[in-house]
Amino acid sequence: MRDVAVIGIGTTNFGLLGEMTVEEMGVRAFSDAIRDAGVEKKDIEALFLGNFTAGMLQGQETLAPMIAYSLGLRENIAAVKVEGACCSSSIGIRLGYQLIASGVHDLVLVGGAEKMTTASTARATRALSAAMDPVSESHTGYTYPGFFGLVANRYMYEYGGTIEQMGMVSVKNHNNSVSNPRARFRHRITLEEVLESRLVADPLKLYDCCPMADGAAALVLCSLERAREYSKKPVVIAGSGMSRGFRTTHETINDKGTMLSLPCTVSAAKEAFGMAKLQPGDIDVVELHDCFTIAEIVDSEDLGFFERGKGGRAVQEGLTQVDGKTPINPSGGLISKGHPVGATGCGQAYEIVKQLRGEHENQVRNAEIGLTHNAGGTGAICAVHIFKRGF
Amino acid sequence: MRDVAVIGIGTTNFGLLGEMTVEEMGVRAFSDAIRDAGVEKKDIEALFLGNFTAGMLQGQETLAPMIAYSLGLRENIAAVKVEGACCSSSIGIRLGYQLIASGVHDLVLVGGAEKMTTASTARATRALSAAMDPVSESHTGYTYPGFFGLVANRYMYEYGGTIEQMGMVSVKNHNNSVSNPRARFRHRITLEEVLESRLVADPLKLYDCCPMADGAAALVLCSLERAREYSKKPVVIAGSGMSRGFRTTHETINDKGTMLSLPCTVSAAKEAFGMAKLQPGDIDVVELHDCFTIAEIVDSEDLGFFERGKGGRAVQEGLTQVDGKTPINPSGGLISKGHPVGATGCGQAYEIVKQLRGEHENQVRNAEIGLTHNAGGTGAICAVHIFKRGF
Repeated sequence: MRDVAVIGIGTTNFGLLGEMTVEEMGVRAFSDAIRDAGVEKKDIEALFLGNFTAGMLQGQETLAPMIAYSLGLRENIAAVKVEGACCSSSIGIRLGYQLIASGVHDLVLVGGAEKMTTASTARATRALSAAMDPVSESHTGYTYPGFFGLVANRYMYEYGGTIEQMGMVSVKNHNNSVSNPRARFRHRITLEEVLESRLVADPLKLYDCCPMADGAAALVLCSLERAREYSKKPVVIAGSGMSRGFRTTHETINDKGTMLSLPCTVSAAKEAFGMAKLQPGDIDVVELHDCFTIAEIVDSEDLGFFERGKGGRAVQEGLTQVDGKTPINPSGGLISKGHPVGATGCGQAYEIVKQLRGEHENQVRNAEIGLTHNAGGTGAICAVHIFKRGF
Repeated sequence: MRDVAVIGIGTTNFGLLGEMTVEEMGVRAFSDAIRDAGVEKKDIEALFLGNFTAGMLQGQETLAPMIAYSLGLRENIAAVKVEGACCSSSIGIRLGYQLIASGVHDLVLVGGAEKMTTASTARATRALSAAMDPVSESHTGYTYPGFFGLVANRYMYEYGGTIEQMGMVSVKNHNNSVSNPRARFRHRITLEEVLESRLVADPLKLYDCCPMADGAAALVLCSLERAREYSKKPVVIAGSGMSRGFRTTHETINDKGTMLSLPCTVSAAKEAFGMAKLQPGDIDVVELHDCFTIAEIVDSEDLGFFERGKGGRAVQEGLTQVDGKTPINPSGGLISKGHPVGATGCGQAYEIVKQLRGEHENQVRNAEIGLTHNAGGTGAICAVHIFKRGF
């Protein structure tokens, strides 16, 4: 296996892009990544597109070969849509990494695109619930805010966590994205505003929840040996972990006795850290799956950054601020940068690559190693990737 | 790169499986394939599931990790849905092949599942059109019968092909599937019945069109060196080709000047034959994408079995019968075995593996080398695989 690097990144802004089709968003992000990498289109050997809702919301599938055509890539290309709910585009990173590391390909495009904000809330909610178990979850009216509301209540009961700690995640992430031109929200908020915002699923308020967003993000992956031909700042994929989880929340609880951990995160992180020969303490900057404020706290424990039950306190103590011990979501995260579900994983990687290049608008000082964590469903699937400077 | 073999096959019947969920169909096919291979579940390292319409028709996505959980596969597994319209599960064969050939994995499950027959015709037609270009095709009312009706008319105009030749494809494929217990239709038909059946899209009649079907099919792929531990009759993947096509019919015509060829088929076939170091004349048995009778004829020319304009006559002369020079679709093909879109590619591979093992209900004598051809959209994507006996 050989080293694999990210040599190009591209993205649209995340937010309200109602006038673009999902295909146009994808083409924009991939084009930007190709230009950033300085590669020739004819040299690209495969394209993986993460997308979750285009079939359900726009009645459009088969986007990957259409985008490959629109980009003018060569005919003999595997152009494939990959789907794993909100984790979809991280699957592309995983496959691109494997196919280059093993010598099948030299140059692979991976990305994600999603168009959500032009659908009604009801339709979008219904589409998102397609990642749930139909028998015990989605058809009962169970939603993601409902799921994470339960997790939040349990976290308070079990560990003495507070709704203020959760609110502080939102304050941090909103403040982080003020300087991020790619973010959906760019205004500061206060803890009072979070706590006084509309109740969504007790105890979670509006500002505890990530917003719908449109957007696309893409990476050009390349073998490290060839990467240096193109890029002065290649970023190496040091670890890749992927795991299935449990089909449903109650199966997770039955098997693991808790809903305060997503087993798929623990499993994917173990694989990624093992491959990278690194520990959580080695990570300089993190973009993780804060679909809700409580998710950021639980994820930070599942990933090994904090002990069980200590993630809430860590936020309170400022440890996850951009100048803290473990900076989490300096981009604004899903909560404030936005969560165009199938694009989120590559969007996280985009932010980490900018950090490791030293070019981020909200730069973590001397960031050399970064981690992305991207989950789908009620813990059905998860991918963790570790990136480090290759220069 | 090392050799890769199919060591296990599983399937549901194709047809009306209204009482099963799409997930249940997938679990059934994968379970059968695992049992056929005799592998232990804990040794399986990745799962690729082809599916096209479950989000749109059942509101269900994220099926791959759910199925991985239901099968009891290990946690650290990449369980991924791959989508390329009617070509979806052949994408899985391609990825599984590459990941094993290159040494990333030893044992990979690939399969497809689709549930279509419980949707109304209108909803299913709308879902299928999600593989078309939204601007110039699907939103205009253009459908696949319409597309292939145009191709059929042009074939008659350009080459003097006849509607009787097309009808003979249907007669052959229906007669072929009488002995196939996996087929949706198991009754003989006559040419008169085809010609007198209801007009669908001039000149195509009802029996010129493949039916909707439910179904799932799956393969266990393994490195050839380890395959011999499990199977006395491993079947080697000798060639794998995949290609994007054009976004729309009119772009194909603008660029290639014809709609009597799908460029993605030509391109994928070239790659597969090149890899296998074989010629069309070396192929003993073919399962190709006969979504309509005219498609079988055009595909047989694009794949190099017959000269341009000679495919219709080849049918008339019996060359594509099970005892002919180039047996095509001895399973019954999409037209009579059925076309559960995301499962079709692995279903074709299932039939070819049975042929090469010498275990098919409609056996081609001394079949040693077989080919599958699976296309998606109006020629947006295509995969060609060549299989040969590994024993």
